[in-house]
Order: sequence, then C-alpha cells, then structure tokens
Amino acid sequence: MPKDVIPLRASLLCGGSVVGYKEYDGPLGALFDYYNDKKNDGDLFGQKTFEAAEAEMQHMALGCALGKCNWMPDALDAMFAGDLQNQCTASAYGLLSYSAPFFGLYGACSTMVEGLLLASIGISGGAFARCAAIASSHNSSAERQYRTPLGYGGQRSPTAQWTVTGAAAFLLSHADEQSVQLVNGAVGIVRDMGINDSSNMGAAMAPAAADTLCRFFAATDTSPADYDGIFTGDLGSEGKSILCELMRLHGYDMGAAYDDCGCLIYQNPQQDTHAGGSGCGCSSVVLAAYLLPKLQRGELQRILLLGTGALMNPDSIKQGRNIPGVAHLVELRAPNNKQRGR
Amino acid sequence: MPKDVIPLRASLLCGGSVVGYKEYDGPLGALFDYYNDKKNDGDLFGQKTFEAAEAEMQHMALGCALGKCNWMPDALDAMFAGDLQNQCTASAYGLLSYSAPFFGLYGACSTMVEGLLLASIGISGGAFARCAAIASSHNSSAERQYRTPLGYGGQRSPTAQWTVTGAAAFLLSHADEQSVQLVNGAVGIVRDMGINDSSNMGAAMAPAAADTLCRFFAATDTSPADYDGIFTGDLGSEGKSILCELMRLHGYDMGAAYDDCGCLIYQNPQQDTHAGGSGCGCSSVVLAAYLLPKLQRGELQRILLLGTGALMNPDSIKQGRNIPGVAHLVELRAPNNKQRGR
Repeated sequence: MPKDVIPLRASLLCGGSVVGYKEYDGPLGALFDYYNDKKNDGDLFGQKTFEAAEAEMQHMALGCALGKCNWMPDALDAMFAGDLQNQCTASAYGLLSYSAPFFGLYGACSTMVEGLLLASIGISGGAFARCAAIASSHNSSAERQYRTPLGYGGQRSPTAQWTVTGAAAFLLSHADEQSVQLVNGAVGIVRDMGINDSSNMGAAMAPAAADTLCRFFAATDTSPADYDGIFTGDLGSEGKSILCELMRLHGYDMGAAYDDCGCLIYQNPQQDTHAGGSGCGCSSVVLAAYLLPKLQRGELQRILLLGTGALMNPDSIKQGRNIPGVAHLVELRAPNNKQRGR
Repeated sequence: MPKDVIPLRASLLCGGSVVGYKEYDGPLGALFDYYNDKKNDGDLFGQKTFEAAEAEMQHMALGCALGKCNWMPDALDAMFAGDLQNQCTASAYGLLSYSAPFFGLYGACSTMVEGLLLASIGISGGAFARCAAIASSHNSSAERQYRTPLGYGGQRSPTAQWTVTGAAAFLLSHADEQSVQLVNGAVGIVRDMGINDSSNMGAAMAPAAADTLCRFFAATDTSPADYDGIFTGDLGSEGKSILCELMRLHGYDMGAAYDDCGCLIYQNPQQDTHAGGSGCGCSSVVLAAYLLPKLQRGELQRILLLGTGALMNPDSIKQGRNIPGVAHLVELRAPNNKQRGR
C-alpha cells in the first residue's frame, strides 16, 4: 500500500502575497502584501495582457518573499511553481528573471500544496537547502481560457466559484525552532466520482479531499479534533458542505475548526462570488496572508492544509469526460517557542 | 549559488513504451513494447478522441512497466506525470484507474526527466520507496491544440519538429546493484534567448541545455569525454547543431557520443519529419526502448539524459512573447555487475 503520511522536516519561513481589487476589497484585504487598489482596471499590474499581469504577480510575490527573508534569488536551489494558464506560462514567464532552478507543476488549485510538499520532501532528504513555492491565478485570464470571453457576460450558477486574482510565494528551508514547521504531508490520489458540471468544481474535488483526509487520519491515528484548524483550498461553500457530509459518513466530525480558503477570501453574498473563491492563487494567498501569520504568532498551533485540484480542461468537458479531483495535504505547526504547554 | 548537481541514490528498474504507427515505422520501431500497426487510423488506440487515445497510451505504458517488475499499482508511493495537453489531462485521465498518489508536472518535453529527477529525490531522501514517472505526447492532439486543425494541411518549415505519438512509464526504487542507477541530477534554469519562432523550438531550447550542461560539468569537474553517451530530448537536428556550437563557445566538444532523441526516433528525410521528433513522449520512449536496455546490458556505461522543454503556449506567442526553454539532467549508470573494469 502507498504511504499515507510522509514525515517532513522543513520550515515555512515566510510568504509574499499579491491580489487584485476584489480580493483586496474582501474580508482579508488588509492582510495582503501587495494589491491593486483600483476598481475595474482589469487588475493589469502595468502589463498589456491579463496573462502577462498574472506572470507579473508571480514575479512580485516571489520578490516580496525574498525581501522578507533577505535572500538573494541565487540562494534558491529550486523553485516549484504552477498556475492555471495553458502550459503554465504565468510561472515560466513570471519567474524567468530570477534565474533559479525551476520545476513546473500542474495541480490546478492544489498546486501550492503540491509545491510545498515537493519542496519539503527535497529539503527533508537533503537535496535542497532553500526552496521557493509559487502559484497564481487571475480571474480574467482564467475566465477567457476556461469559460467565455469577459465581455460575453455569461450567467453563473449558484455552485460556481470565482477564480481569485492572486499570487503567493513561500520560502522554505531546513527545520528550525523559530519558524513554522512542515511536519507531515500526504500525496493525493486522483478520484473521479462522476461529476461533469464544470460550474460545480467543489463537488468534483470534495471526494478527493475526503479520501486524503481519511487516509491521513488513519495513518496518524488522529481525527479533526486533534487540529485547531483544517483548511481546504478551494472547495467553496458547496464543496465544503459535501466534504463535511462525506467525512461524517466515514465517522469524522469536521467540527468548527474546519474552513475553506474559498469561503474565507470573499464576503458573500455582498461580493457575489456565489460558492466562493477558487484558483491556484486562492489558498496560496490565504496561507500567505492569513494562516501563516496566525501560525507564526501561535494563534494557530497545528493545522492541516489541503490543496484541492480539479484536473479537467474545457475540451475534456466538451468531450463528455468527468472531472477528476486530487487533494494534497501538509501539516503545519507553530514555531516551537510559540507552542502552548512548552 | 544554487546547487548545480544533486547526488541521487535510486534505481531505474524498468520502462514501458507505447507508440503510434509513424514511430513504429522508424528506426527504433522494433524496440517498443506496444505500437499501433495500422497506418492512417489516427493512432486512436480504441478511443473516440486523440486526447483520450493519449490518456490510454499512458495507461498502457504504466501497465506494461508494472507488469515487467511484477508490481501491483498499490505498490506505488507516488506517480510523477505530465503531458502537453492543456491542464495535463492525458495524465490525470490516463492514470486515474491506478489509484496511486499523483504529482502532476508541466515541463513540456522536459517532463520525463523532471519526473525522474523528482522521483529520485524523493527516493534518495527516504520519502518514497517505489515511484513511477510517466509522460506522453500525441501528434494529433498536439497539432490541433498548438498549431492548426489536422485537416488544414499547414506547411511546415525546415526547422519544425514532429510531435511524437508515444508514452512511456518508468519504475524507480532504492539504489540496487543489479539495476541501472540514477546517480546525479541537475535542475534546469529557465532561459530566454529571444527566440519567438514556434517552428524552431530547437533554437529556443538549446541555450537552456547548454546552460545545464555547463553548470553540471563545472560542478562535477567532468566534460563530454567522460560519458559514453549524452542525449538531449528533444532539440531535433537544428537545436542539436546549435547546442554543439554553444558548447564549443564554452570550451566543450560534445563529440561523437552526443545525440538527440528527436534525431534518433525518425529516419529523415524518408519520414519527412523535418528537424526530427519532439513532445514529452519522444525522449520518454527513446529512453524506455533504446537507452535503458543498452544501459541494462552494459553497452552504455555512463550517460547524461537532458530533458529539454519549451515553456510557451500558443497565446503567449500570439501576444509577442519569446519562447523560454528549460533543461533538466539526470546521470544514469549501468548496473554495477555490468560496469567495465569491475
């Protein structure tokens, strides 16, 4: 049987986040490092296209993280990066100028956790000393690629999620007492439960999240009550309730400590994002701006972060295929000197 | 400075390969495990679409490799997989039924070496005991996605490469005396030398290959003469000659032991593939069917395999961006008992 838990020994040193206007306008707005403060300018970040804007956001996010840790780009042994653009071009173009070793990933909205997991595995085993994990999404580049041109004004169903305009970058290194620690990981298994409605990604991804969580809880002999936070990214409100129901069927009560990054990032119904946020950038910026600082301060002690990805493309949907989901997991702990009872 | 060489301790146990008719009709045709023996049937492998055919090829390739090693799918701690389809759907759908932990990669034609490198890093560090690396491309799914609909009959320029219809899967485990060994790796840095002609990918990728090779030679204090084979995948004939010229400028003679998987897989000009093969499947099937058996028999003792990827997409080209390239490297050695002088 495959390993259902991978012990990790790595630190999450710092994160940098960059978001668009709508995300800045949301409940976490004040926490992001950089944001677009102009409404309705397309979140172009000084670029000519939405695609170039997304690349620029990755560039800004990594620059911000490097600045916080006072690292030069040539300190990086590896960058693990991905996005939603076809052939992951936001990462390739956005990170080009850092001239650091580059691993391209594709995990849809699970990309950031996939990157954190792979970077931590490389650091734990001694292959790398210093890594970065970067991911992004941009609402405008995603809409025209996955759905319809922006000007079309397509109707959105109640279960549809809103692709977050956001990019985040994290720096990782050897386990260290003063930093947030990555202590365990679990690699997701792709699951297909027959969902083929691309306006209901939450339903497609929830079974994968339940699968990873159940495997992880069994392997570690823990349950939701052992964590003071469990965060999925991004199931939205629809997928979140499905996950709670699936977990209940497996005998687990997800409890009050469970939330979803797609639900945290927008204020609904005021911001009218229907089921909430999605996209590689969503859980990435929520981790960088909200969860990581809470861990650093010891307000959260021990959390699970699940990156959930829907692994289809527009053509596969048109060809009548289902939407398979995957969910990668990392367990994060507060720095040793911030742990209660120590 | 980033690490320019990563010591690896892993074995490449076996490979499985699946190709289309044109590849079967080429100089390595007799060596592949499975092939389509019917000309002009679109290499559909029993599926309704080219995209589903490519997924089926990945499924077949991994099944073949698992059979050779007599492993059940649940032996796998992780699969590292990617392809050229938007959002890497050939991997997600093709490998779904194996229900094994899944890391999605995007490295264009460098995907297989990226997967071998990440799997080896995970095995070397103890995170995984048994991994698979899988990659594919399909000429028909690539043509209509990247270039023009097949029926359009577009002209191809002399430097254009032909996307290989092929999939390969490899199984990796702990270093073992009897197996081909992965002993070193190097992670590619994305390089952009201003090439923006998508019909000349070789020129776009050659500088990245030269960069990785020079960094690796300097870090290991070796030169091309120390290896009895150096193989790029896939620069094609144009990129191959550019790489030789670039290396000469850096003081290295690539010598007679250097070849390119894109040049090995087709017989030109008879097969009319212009500059040769390309696509994630190209170097993957050449490694599985040609290079790995030669290493296993000791006919090759010590080789470097460079996976070279062009990290653009059709929209980025239309938006006037250049084509950045990346090249990952692994060093492979014959099993200990097949090494000369032992």
